[in-house]
Amino acid sequence: MEPIKTFELSKEYLESFRIGIEEQQNDFILESLEGVNVADIAALLDELNLEEAIYVLRLLSHETAADIMIELDEVSVNKVIREMEAIELASLIDEMDSDDAADILILMPSKDREDVISHLQEKEKSANILDLLRYDEDSAGGLMAKEYIKANQNWSVIQTIEEIRRQAENVEKIYSIYVVDNKQHLLGRVSLKKIILAASNTKIMDIYEPELISVPTHMEGEEVAEIMRKYDLESVPVVNAKNKLVGRITVDDILDLIREQSEEDIQAMTGISADVEESDSIWRISKARLPWLIIGVVGGLMGAQIITFFEEGLSKYIALASFIPLVAATGGNVGIQSSSLVVQTLASKSVFDDSPWQRFVKGLLIALVNGIVLGLFVFSVVKFIYGFDSIFGFTIGLSMFFVVLMASFMGTVTPLVLDKFGVNPAIASGPFITTANDLLGLAVYFGVAMYLLNL
Amino acid sequence: MEPIKTFELSKEYLESFRIGIEEQQNDFILESLEGVNVADIAALLDELNLEEAIYVLRLLSHETAADIMIELDEVSVNKVIREMEAIELASLIDEMDSDDAADILILMPSKDREDVISHLQEKEKSANILDLLRYDEDSAGGLMAKEYIKANQNWSVIQTIEEIRRQAENVEKIYSIYVVDNKQHLLGRVSLKKIILAASNTKIMDIYEPELISVPTHMEGEEVAEIMRKYDLESVPVVNAKNKLVGRITVDDILDLIREQSEEDIQAMTGISADVEESDSIWRISKARLPWLIIGVVGGLMGAQIITFFEEGLSKYIALASFIPLVAATGGNVGIQSSSLVVQTLASKSVFDDSPWQRFVKGLLIALVNGIVLGLFVFSVVKFIYGFDSIFGFTIGLSMFFVVLMASFMGTVTPLVLDKFGVNPAIASGPFITTANDLLGLAVYFGVAMYLLNL
Repeated sequence: MEPIKTFELSKEYLESFRIGIEEQQNDFILESLEGVNVADIAALLDELNLEEAIYVLRLLSHETAADIMIELDEVSVNKVIREMEAIELASLIDEMDSDDAADILILMPSKDREDVISHLQEKEKSANILDLLRYDEDSAGGLMAKEYIKANQNWSVIQTIEEIRRQAENVEKIYSIYVVDNKQHLLGRVSLKKIILAASNTKIMDIYEPELISVPTHMEGEEVAEIMRKYDLESVPVVNAKNKLVGRITVDDILDLIREQSEEDIQAMTGISADVEESDSIWRISKARLPWLIIGVVGGLMGAQIITFFEEGLSKYIALASFIPLVAATGGNVGIQSSSLVVQTLASKSVFDDSPWQRFVKGLLIALVNGIVLGLFVFSVVKFIYGFDSIFGFTIGLSMFFVVLMASFMGTVTPLVLDKFGVNPAIASGPFITTANDLLGLAVYFGVAMYLLNL
Repeated sequence: MEPIKTFELSKEYLESFRIGIEEQQNDFILESLEGVNVADIAALLDELNLEEAIYVLRLLSHETAADIMIELDEVSVNKVIREMEAIELASLIDEMDSDDAADILILMPSKDREDVISHLQEKEKSANILDLLRYDEDSAGGLMAKEYIKANQNWSVIQTIEEIRRQAENVEKIYSIYVVDNKQHLLGRVSLKKIILAASNTKIMDIYEPELISVPTHMEGEEVAEIMRKYDLESVPVVNAKNKLVGRITVDDILDLIREQSEEDIQAMTGISADVEESDSIWRISKARLPWLIIGVVGGLMGAQIITFFEEGLSKYIALASFIPLVAATGGNVGIQSSSLVVQTLASKSVFDDSPWQRFVKGLLIALVNGIVLGLFVFSVVKFIYGFDSIFGFTIGLSMFFVVLMASFMGTVTPLVLDKFGVNPAIASGPFITTANDLLGLAVYFGVAMYLLNL
């Protein structure tokens, strides 16, 4: 066995695979996919065109095809489900866990969706899927699966093993067995290890652990992820408002969620307005990038108006123009740093957060330190290295000081305000805050200059 | 049972807890921590001073104290291990998994570390810990634990259950049982579910799954995380160069790693040079922020030199000064967008990445689209709304176009070069790229202006 049994997808292999499809060499196709992980097959199908992908899916067993469908990227899935007949799709959905089935069905128009669900073999599965479709996709209810093992507290170990046997095909990974009372209220959990090591007539109520973290259906996915990370959980039971067990979330779904969210944050911070990747089309990427660029340009054009307003003074003291980029850039850099720290704190939601007032005072003190250091540094360079007179050096240094203070303030307050209004605060680290700081910085700079230099 | 059994840490509770410690009300302390998750107790101790935290740790059982130690933040752990005697620390380490023990011991000077290890009760554990300490902290070898269940392929199910019983105390979460041959080569895995459902005289070799993803000891943690996410693994076996099983990595360690890395990336992007949080001291935060700010300021001062060089032309056409911030800001925004897309691609490492040349052509085409749109937009505003003449509008529009092209190029190339040299490419989305783009933008702007306006 190789140390990592992942699949090598070279462009050469892709080419030969395509030829295999074109020439309908089914044996070659099946052989070359033998033992390959479904995630790797999905990555391969993502690179094929629709007809080719569907050809391969139809060649494989329903179970394998279903597992691959779950791993396809959203663009591919969307195309595949539009191409397949309701009855064919239903035969694949029959093989999926309820949460994966719901994730795919949610992509369809509701009429088609009902059509597929009506073709499902198992009554229980269709009921489960319909139940899951009610929840918001990003909530605990939308993330949970209906496949898990639960045991009544009055059962014996042997009864529980029977239940595991009955569900063995439906529940791929067990982790914990959830313990409920007669009314389905969640009481606790018992690990498979304990089941194995206990005598077969032991009652579950005597071995289960009552300490158990559960999450309500309405909890946001992000919060679920943070709880699972903090408490080292590989699965967490989901309960409804009456504390009845309704599903469970497993850590693999959370890993995907965390990755998506960190990508979203970074895109928000860097001014890319939609979920794009380098491999998307040129037009799609341009469209995702232009909105924030245009906002930045409009800000720059407004900045031009501000400078034009001070044009008379500027023409008397032309050296002022040279330091415009310095002032603007520092404002942007300070603003991004401040907002990034606040965004980080908002994401981790510590129980002992400082009050807004303490935060404000602390931010002010840090800004004072940074402002004094940078102001003095700039004053020294302008006076002693560039050889300007003291009053001009003082003008630039003092402007720097004020810009640092103001940009810190903006950078701290903006994400807090955005968060309050339910907007992703990460966008405050992006072009918006930079543009706002540029404008403020210019106003401060020329204000200080006009006053100190008597222009 | 409450839906989420997390601990409410109010400031009032913290106060009463501190008084409890001061007055040595041990019953009150123990009672109020009864049933509280160790992660929450750790968060509480992080807020106490060293004497208080140690007082509480000594009051609890070794097992609980050890679990809490693992969850403390690094600053607190560092203080606690410096305060405790080797023998006391050894009694806590005795209760930890080998990977957690190694994470704590690595923080100590090597002399003290040896002292602690010599006091450990179990010979096997000290050997395991010494083994783990050899690996780089961020590699698979540094992340893995020595606690896992392995079964020889020739064993029966009942023998395997005996092994589970023997190891029950050491291995908290089992997930999978790894199957090896007589020479400890990893052959595959068998799930606990299969063990439960199989007859007790079944041979392991008849039920194990030979398809298994493993990672080598030298693999980087980041790559391990990506593999576990992609293949939905809750644990992964680690093998040495000879494919012998040497440890396993569980998903809880990976969740922490992913969070740390996404925080690091964001800090790199926003120009914060060390791992700081809003709750750190003012001095510590300032120190982490100043280096990049100073680099930005030096860039701004160099920009001043560039503008001074064109001062004569500028004084003839003072309106040029007004559009300096526009050009500089757009360069920065475009550069950050481009680099962020590249960094994202580098992180996900798709198997079908475009070649550098395709990437370059595509980036160029996107830049052309964005450059033409923004150039035309700016030209129109400058000429028709601000009322400048055509040649001046054309100067600003053309400068915009060139700046977008150059900033895209810089933003694409810089992270690729940094990655090549093993530097975190995320810093290319930060102040560095912005500063470089500002300078380039200024040079282009004044170059175009001097030429077109005949200055």
